[in-house]
Amino acid sequence: MYDLDLNRDVVSLTACLVDAPSESFHEEQLADAVEGALSGLAHLEVSRTGNTVIAKTNLGRRERVIIGGHLDTVPAHDNLPHRLVDDRVHGLGSCDMKGGVATALRLASQLTEPAYDVTYLFYDCEEVASEHNGLAKLAAADPGALAGDFAILMEPSNARVEAGCQGTLRAEITAQGSRAHSARAWMGNNAIHNATEILERLTRYEPREVDIDGLEYREGLNAVLISGGVAGNVIPDSCTVTVNYRYAPSLSADEAVAHVREIFEGFAIKVVDNAPGAMPGLRDEAVARFIEILGEPAQPKFGWTDVARFSALGIPALNFGPGDPSLAHTQGEYVPIADLHRCEEALRSWLMGQ
Amino acid sequence: MYDLDLNRDVVSLTACLVDAPSESFHEEQLADAVEGALSGLAHLEVSRTGNTVIAKTNLGRRERVIIGGHLDTVPAHDNLPHRLVDDRVHGLGSCDMKGGVATALRLASQLTEPAYDVTYLFYDCEEVASEHNGLAKLAAADPGALAGDFAILMEPSNARVEAGCQGTLRAEITAQGSRAHSARAWMGNNAIHNATEILERLTRYEPREVDIDGLEYREGLNAVLISGGVAGNVIPDSCTVTVNYRYAPSLSADEAVAHVREIFEGFAIKVVDNAPGAMPGLRDEAVARFIEILGEPAQPKFGWTDVARFSALGIPALNFGPGDPSLAHTQGEYVPIADLHRCEEALRSWLMGQ
Repeated sequence: MYDLDLNRDVVSLTACLVDAPSESFHEEQLADAVEGALSGLAHLEVSRTGNTVIAKTNLGRRERVIIGGHLDTVPAHDNLPHRLVDDRVHGLGSCDMKGGVATALRLASQLTEPAYDVTYLFYDCEEVASEHNGLAKLAAADPGALAGDFAILMEPSNARVEAGCQGTLRAEITAQGSRAHSARAWMGNNAIHNATEILERLTRYEPREVDIDGLEYREGLNAVLISGGVAGNVIPDSCTVTVNYRYAPSLSADEAVAHVREIFEGFAIKVVDNAPGAMPGLRDEAVARFIEILGEPAQPKFGWTDVARFSALGIPALNFGPGDPSLAHTQGEYVPIADLHRCEEALRSWLMGQ
Repeated sequence: MYDLDLNRDVVSLTACLVDAPSESFHEEQLADAVEGALSGLAHLEVSRTGNTVIAKTNLGRRERVIIGGHLDTVPAHDNLPHRLVDDRVHGLGSCDMKGGVATALRLASQLTEPAYDVTYLFYDCEEVASEHNGLAKLAAADPGALAGDFAILMEPSNARVEAGCQGTLRAEITAQGSRAHSARAWMGNNAIHNATEILERLTRYEPREVDIDGLEYREGLNAVLISGGVAGNVIPDSCTVTVNYRYAPSLSADEAVAHVREIFEGFAIKVVDNAPGAMPGLRDEAVARFIEILGEPAQPKFGWTDVARFSALGIPALNFGPGDPSLAHTQGEYVPIADLHRCEEALRSWLMGQ
C-alpha cells in the first residue's frame, strides 16, 4: 500500500502521488491510500464508493463547497518516476491531475475549520469512457454525496479560473451514392463527391461567440474524422464526416442537436455523443469572492470537463487547478511548483473566509 | 491430377474446368492438367514457365496470333461444383474466365492447320497483385514467348469485341493542416476542411471523350477513398483523397501523371500506381477481318486488362470472350452457353481463314 503523508508540502506530495501509479481501472491502491490518510482526521467524515473517496466537513456552515479531482491517469509512457527539474514536477499525471489532487488533499487535512463546509471528492476513471466515470457513478448511486452550493474541479487550468464549460456533440454526417466499377463511373453515383457539400457547409460555417456572465464562449463546428470508399477501383456508395460541435453552455443538448440537424439538412445525421456544458455561475456570491481573491478575471472554459456533471445537478462549477491543460496526456507533462503554491494559497484564503 | 479431355464439347469442358479449383497461387494442378492435355498433340510445341503453359503452332505462317487466358479464379464462395441451369454454366470462374479458357483449349487441340500461327497462353495469378501476374512474369523471363502480330485476351466481354483498354492511375491527394484540441479549433488548421477544394475540383471536372480508330474512350477522374482525422476531439492535420484516373489509351503513363498533377496543383500528390492502356489496333488487317466475321462493330474497353501488357510490347490486342464482365467475382457468376459457342465458332472461322 502506498504511504501518503499529508503533512508533506504540496510539492513533495505531488511527487509522491506521481510515484503511486493509478492508470484508469487500476486506482484501487491509490484510493486505499487516500482513504487511509483521510480517515484518521477527526474533522472529516470519510466514505467510499468503489474507488471514489468522499471526505466531508460537517460544521453546519451556511454553504457547502465541493472540491474534486480524479485519481486516475492515462497509461505510462516512460515517464515514471517523477523528476524535479527547473521548478517543475515532471512525470505521469503531474499535470493531469495529481498536482490538483495533492492540493486538495493538503486542504482536506489542514483546514479543520473552513468558512464553508467542504466535500472533497477523489474519483476514478475520468480518463476513459464516460460510463466508467467515478463521479458519474457516484451521482447515480448517491446523489446526496454531491450536494453543495458550488463546485471547484481541480483540473489543470494554469492556476487560473476557467468558468463553466462548453458542451460537446459529435455526429456522423453521411453522403450516399451508388457503387460502380471506377472504369465506368457514370454507372454509379460518387458518395465522396457528394460529400463536397458537407465540407462546404463546414468551411462556410461561422461559429457564434456567446456572452454569459461577461465571459465570451467561442463555439466551433469542425470535421474531426472522414472516411469513405470501398476499394481502389470502386465508385464509393457512402462517405461519412464526423463533426464535433462545441457549444456554449447556454444551449441545451437538444438545442445543439437541432442546430446540427439544421446545418446538415438533406444528409443522413447520426448523433453519436452529446454532453451539454456547464454555466459559469459567476453571479454566485462565493464565486465572486473567490475570483476577487485571485485578483484576475475568470476565463471561459472551452473544453468539456466534469464540471458539467455538477451543472446538471444545478450546482455552479468552475475549473481551477495547477498545470497547463495543453500538456495533459503528453509524455513530457509537468506541473509548475508556482502553480501548486498559488492554487493551495488561493483556496486556503478563500475557504478560511479571508 | 485433373483429367482434361479436350475432345469434349466446349460446354462440358467449361464445366470440367470449373470443377478443377484453381484459386490464385493454387493453379499448379490445373496447369499440370493443361500441360498434359496439350503435350500429346503433334501440331503444338508446349513449354512451361512456373504455372504458365505456352503452346505454339510453328507452321511458318506470315502472321502469328496470341490467344491468352488466365487459369486462376478468386476464392470460392459456396459456388462449386458447377451447375447447368437455363442454358448457362454456373459456378466459380465460369465467367471469369474458364469459359474463355475452355474455348481456347478447344481451338488449340482441334485447329491443326490454322491460317495464322497461334501462340496459346494459359497463365496464373491474374486475380492478385500485378507483381504475381503470370503473363508479366513470362514477358520478363522470356519476351520471345509473347512475340506476335496480334493478341486476343479471352476475358469476358459478352462475346463481343472490346478493343484496347484505358489506362488507370491512382494517386493520393493530401490536404494538410495542424492539430489542435477541437474545443479550441482556432489554434489549429483543419485539414479535412482544407480538402474541400480537392473535392470541388473533382466535382467540377469534366472527363474527356477521346476518339481512337472510331471508338470513343470515355475517361473518368474519381475519388475512390478518403480518410482523415486523429480522434473525436482533435482538429486533424491531414486528409487524403485517393483518386482514380481512367485515361484513354492514347495517353502515356507520364502524360496521365502530368494531367493529375495539373488538376490538383497546390496539394501534395503521390502516385501510387499507374498502368497505361492499350491501343485498339483496329487498323490492323487481321483485326479488321476478325471484326468483319463477327458482324458487329468493336466497342471500347474501359477497364484495364492484360491486353495492355501486349500493347506495351507493341502488339495490338483486344478483349473477346464469353460471359458478362459485370458478373466476374460475384457468387452467382455464370457463362451463357450461347456465348461459348459464338466465341468458339467466330475464332475458328477467323483462324481457319474463312
